[in-house]
Amino acid sequence: MNIVEWSALDATARAAMLERAPEAQSVELRDGVARLIAQVRADGDSTLRALTRRYDGCELGALAVSAGEFDAADALVAPELKRAIGEARERIERFHRATAPADVALDTAPGVRCERVLRPLRRVGLYVPSGSAPLPSTVLMLAVPAAIAGCHDVVMCTPANAQGDCDPLVLHAARACGVKRVFKLGGAQAIAAMAYGTESVPRCDKLFGPGNAWVTEAKRQVALDPQGAAIDLPAGPSEVLVIADASADPGFVAADLLSQAEHGPDSQAILLSPSSALIMAVEAAIEAQLADLPRADLARRALAHSRLIHVPDLATAVRVSNDYAPEHLILNVENARSWLAQVDNAGSIFLGPWSPEAVGDYCSGTNHVLPTYGHARAWSGVSVASFVKLVTVQELSADGLRAIGPCAATLARAEGLDAHERAVTRRLRRLAENAV
Amino acid sequence: MNIVEWSALDATARAAMLERAPEAQSVELRDGVARLIAQVRADGDSTLRALTRRYDGCELGALAVSAGEFDAADALVAPELKRAIGEARERIERFHRATAPADVALDTAPGVRCERVLRPLRRVGLYVPSGSAPLPSTVLMLAVPAAIAGCHDVVMCTPANAQGDCDPLVLHAARACGVKRVFKLGGAQAIAAMAYGTESVPRCDKLFGPGNAWVTEAKRQVALDPQGAAIDLPAGPSEVLVIADASADPGFVAADLLSQAEHGPDSQAILLSPSSALIMAVEAAIEAQLADLPRADLARRALAHSRLIHVPDLATAVRVSNDYAPEHLILNVENARSWLAQVDNAGSIFLGPWSPEAVGDYCSGTNHVLPTYGHARAWSGVSVASFVKLVTVQELSADGLRAIGPCAATLARAEGLDAHERAVTRRLRRLAENAV
Repeated sequence: MNIVEWSALDATARAAMLERAPEAQSVELRDGVARLIAQVRADGDSTLRALTRRYDGCELGALAVSAGEFDAADALVAPELKRAIGEARERIERFHRATAPADVALDTAPGVRCERVLRPLRRVGLYVPSGSAPLPSTVLMLAVPAAIAGCHDVVMCTPANAQGDCDPLVLHAARACGVKRVFKLGGAQAIAAMAYGTESVPRCDKLFGPGNAWVTEAKRQVALDPQGAAIDLPAGPSEVLVIADASADPGFVAADLLSQAEHGPDSQAILLSPSSALIMAVEAAIEAQLADLPRADLARRALAHSRLIHVPDLATAVRVSNDYAPEHLILNVENARSWLAQVDNAGSIFLGPWSPEAVGDYCSGTNHVLPTYGHARAWSGVSVASFVKLVTVQELSADGLRAIGPCAATLARAEGLDAHERAVTRRLRRLAENAV
Repeated sequence: MNIVEWSALDATARAAMLERAPEAQSVELRDGVARLIAQVRADGDSTLRALTRRYDGCELGALAVSAGEFDAADALVAPELKRAIGEARERIERFHRATAPADVALDTAPGVRCERVLRPLRRVGLYVPSGSAPLPSTVLMLAVPAAIAGCHDVVMCTPANAQGDCDPLVLHAARACGVKRVFKLGGAQAIAAMAYGTESVPRCDKLFGPGNAWVTEAKRQVALDPQGAAIDLPAGPSEVLVIADASADPGFVAADLLSQAEHGPDSQAILLSPSSALIMAVEAAIEAQLADLPRADLARRALAHSRLIHVPDLATAVRVSNDYAPEHLILNVENARSWLAQVDNAGSIFLGPWSPEAVGDYCSGTNHVLPTYGHARAWSGVSVASFVKLVTVQELSADGLRAIGPCAATLARAEGLDAHERAVTRRLRRLAENAV
């Protein structure tokens, strides 16, 4: 790992230190995805079958998971895992219900009723990848807020294995969250199918979920097309930034950095600390913990571009973190809460020694679909709000129009929009004529 | 105008009837904007000056509006207009405060504190175009929610005239909303400047506001670049859909359709009615009102691709409207409110005979920056939420981790993420060792 002395760096070197790995974006990727989307739009299911044969090595019968397959999957899941899924789901529900937006109504003037009403998205598409391992937690993080939002039509795509079977735990989690329509599709073709619809897969209004470079590029392309679909978030590799002081346990800090690094070679893990002793101890602990970590190879590749940074004090650490805008921020310092008010850019924050990132990934209740790659500067993680439209309403009585119509007419005239003005004054004249 | 009998159309013809005009997007536009952005990134202010000379015909001194210029602008605005701006601002504030998100904190389990905290965006960029007329209302719709969100650093760009002066009413509205940094810049170059920063214009985290095809394309391009800036909404031409029954005043309906049509030739105005008599009367009223409308030429061009559609009943009208997903929906029918629950896709809704769209455009309190072009299927209009990040927080006590740690560890193991599991179990072991 690279140990860095922040004070010794000039502005350019500091900026370089906070840079993400360049995006996995190339002309080949862009054109390849565009071709694939065009194929799915042109030939629908038959293209989906052909691509699934080619990329997943699997000959699909029906594209949709059948009730029998759901049952079979349920029978394969250990009771301990079912309990864990149920327990996580309950806390995720509790947090997402508490943070859901609500209808609002008020009179902004006598006779001028203004409202903000919620409308669930009509049909949403959830993408659950299956890389090195199944991701039932992603099912929970997407399907629970969709259900709370009131989305009745929830579609999910997740790739099948060579035998044409989806992961049992993913299917169990889907059913536990009320998702009944799951298609055995992965990759950019799944995104294309949900954005445009095929014979089997219905067209969705918004697509959610993580994925590899192909999936990310496909989401980007369908989001740009008004005939396509909206998406949850711009995506990038996962990342953690840990701020720790001399009070922190080096073994805990090392474990937190490693649990980010094991996601993949493009993951980024950064430690900021005012304690050189802690930094040295963390470095040693990382080496020790890597010794028997199953995914040590992946983690080592991620660590190659990760950094341990010595900063003069915690205030500097928080400022640097705000500039970096990490997806996950762990504040493993004394009186961690006292620093919270100064954090402005982060996806999700973990306070104190007993809050490892893994609890947020699985079961504290918060969502784990978060803005990466610096997008936390302007984006928020997935929540119930991601699954609803906030529609505004106004209803004026005749008195209401009498009260605010003249203001609207004055401003319309100033903007040179006479027809706007007349839509108001015509009504005001009618009211004046009919007044006794 | 085109009068259409909905029942006589097959599915293809119905879909065609609800189609928007094709996007003003071309390879030339895309490449031209990309070149312009690259120029601004390379040469900063000097490029901005050169482009402003070429496109706005104006030789800029300082790019920023000075305090003296703000004062001079204020002196030029009529008291009646100042009152109208102040009155509109107050109601917009009232509505946006009432619909602003708030912090939330709860324990999802004993010892597991979870929160959702708001953080204003650090720096936002507001774009206020100046086409055929100034748009002070757009200043209000962007600057008021930014202020409520707590954004301290608000930047605005609006083009100057050939003399190098910005519109006095726009400057007055900006100052009334607390915006102090206004740059005399328009077009795609203004978007590039705010997204990447120049010597004079600071880099912004998110850009807001309407604009022409160049501005829209520039916003799209900077939003795609992780080094660029987020944007408020995908944009398209403005549109209204009116649902009216036999109880509606044809003159009101005609005025509402015209106040949309006058925006420009690509505006779309659609009427759905179960009453043939009303449709005929509206058509006649449109012709009569066009006679002395200053922007009649623009309106006629928009009306050429607008439609008056006869539907069998109001339930059909609402279904068709939901499929169209209009930016503005006017429900000018008896008991308009009784239909509200069935509307799911719309940007903003106007109920009853006394709620012309112009009140929402200016001063009912709701926002007029709304999803167009069918984006109301998945997007909401601008609100305070557009100017904040919703950051999640979790703080576990030792007891909290004892309670939910095993669940996280079980799920991490199932996903093959051993380092995640160990970040939890290492802490649980420590707690077990230290327990008495």
